[in-house]
Amino acid sequence: MSDVVLIRIKEEVLSDNRELAASVRDRLTARSVKMVNVMASPGAGKTSFIVRLLQHFSGRLNMAVIEGDVDSTVDAETILAAGFEAVQLQTGGSCHLNAAMVERALQDLDLETLDLILVENIGNLICPAGHDTGAHLNLVLSSLPEGDDKPLKYPGIFRGVDAVVVNKTDAHSVFTFDVEAFKRRVGRLNQEAPVFPVSCVTGEGLADCFEWLAVRSSFPEPSSR
Amino acid sequence: MSDVVLIRIKEEVLSDNRELAASVRDRLTARSVKMVNVMASPGAGKTSFIVRLLQHFSGRLNMAVIEGDVDSTVDAETILAAGFEAVQLQTGGSCHLNAAMVERALQDLDLETLDLILVENIGNLICPAGHDTGAHLNLVLSSLPEGDDKPLKYPGIFRGVDAVVVNKTDAHSVFTFDVEAFKRRVGRLNQEAPVFPVSCVTGEGLADCFEWLAVRSSFPEPSSR
Repeated sequence: MSDVVLIRIKEEVLSDNRELAASVRDRLTARSVKMVNVMASPGAGKTSFIVRLLQHFSGRLNMAVIEGDVDSTVDAETILAAGFEAVQLQTGGSCHLNAAMVERALQDLDLETLDLILVENIGNLICPAGHDTGAHLNLVLSSLPEGDDKPLKYPGIFRGVDAVVVNKTDAHSVFTFDVEAFKRRVGRLNQEAPVFPVSCVTGEGLADCFEWLAVRSSFPEPSSR
Repeated sequence: MSDVVLIRIKEEVLSDNRELAASVRDRLTARSVKMVNVMASPGAGKTSFIVRLLQHFSGRLNMAVIEGDVDSTVDAETILAAGFEAVQLQTGGSCHLNAAMVERALQDLDLETLDLILVENIGNLICPAGHDTGAHLNLVLSSLPEGDDKPLKYPGIFRGVDAVVVNKTDAHSVFTFDVEAFKRRVGRLNQEAPVFPVSCVTGEGLADCFEWLAVRSSFPEPSSR
């Protein structure tokens, strides 16, 4: 019985979240600020990817990061150490970010001066997929050590994203990962999302991925600022 | 408002789960069957670890595996291909296993003939920690590619387990992972749980880990059967 009640209430909460997410997105759009939600397993390299992205667009865009974590401030410290602005959200046990949490973090950012906000979601391939954060684009990172079967096992998150990044290509000598099989598995769930194999250690593949993001987000050209 | 209601209902469900988990555990104990719950991030190597464990105790114990997955039957097929018995639980989106799901899977197993049941939980470092499956022992696997900061970021799961396994030590040439720092971080959350660095590829460290499990579970000695 209580399971049934839980589902009903949960749907109300999810519906509230969808409305709030749409209003967060509209508010950002009105100020020409893009927001990108980065999701992945624990340890797939979300923070390293975000640092690389910040460095790539540095001088071309004004950016800030909203860091989601169950506990600790490790990732926000990494972003700050790299010379960029970060707001740390601690969920205290919650397994995903939602629009209300992101809205709270936005209060600490000056939207008038920003072009791009990156949201680092909680390390989890399931729950973040079900909760709109208000971002304009959603990315999921996989990584070579996790194996090429993740789209089979966590289809929901691959179905809902705008692009898939496969990180840690530099580890190919140690891990067997069939990139073509992975792409086929993603393609069966999501025909629109490109797949970008990258290494945040060597930088391989990142430029293609970031320029795809620039085109999709209509960022100004490097020379136009 | 709906958030507050959600929490209340959720507590009722959690309390129902705790009671059911205790009854599952009692039922298994009465039949001298041990159940071990294996938790980890996606791709940390739960299935490989379980296959190694089955091979280690093969001929000494009668064993079966309950495989939890959001979707797909990939892991159960791996277990069957290795020559062992597996029941696949598909959660259809749920981010963790609970005692009710495990109880359903137990209906497909002959408890009279088994000594050990391994539960492979959903790949997730957050939600499984909050839901007792009815297992006697709980393990969490980390892995070198995930980084040594996981106890800082996902403290809940490290606090509640009986042992911590650090898999993929064979990848040390590619990934920086400070085992001593990791052990200190685990120790601050959980002074009882031993940490076992292992490689399910080379087999390094596994014998120590499995013999710890044998002692904790009072398994019969190899020669006594």
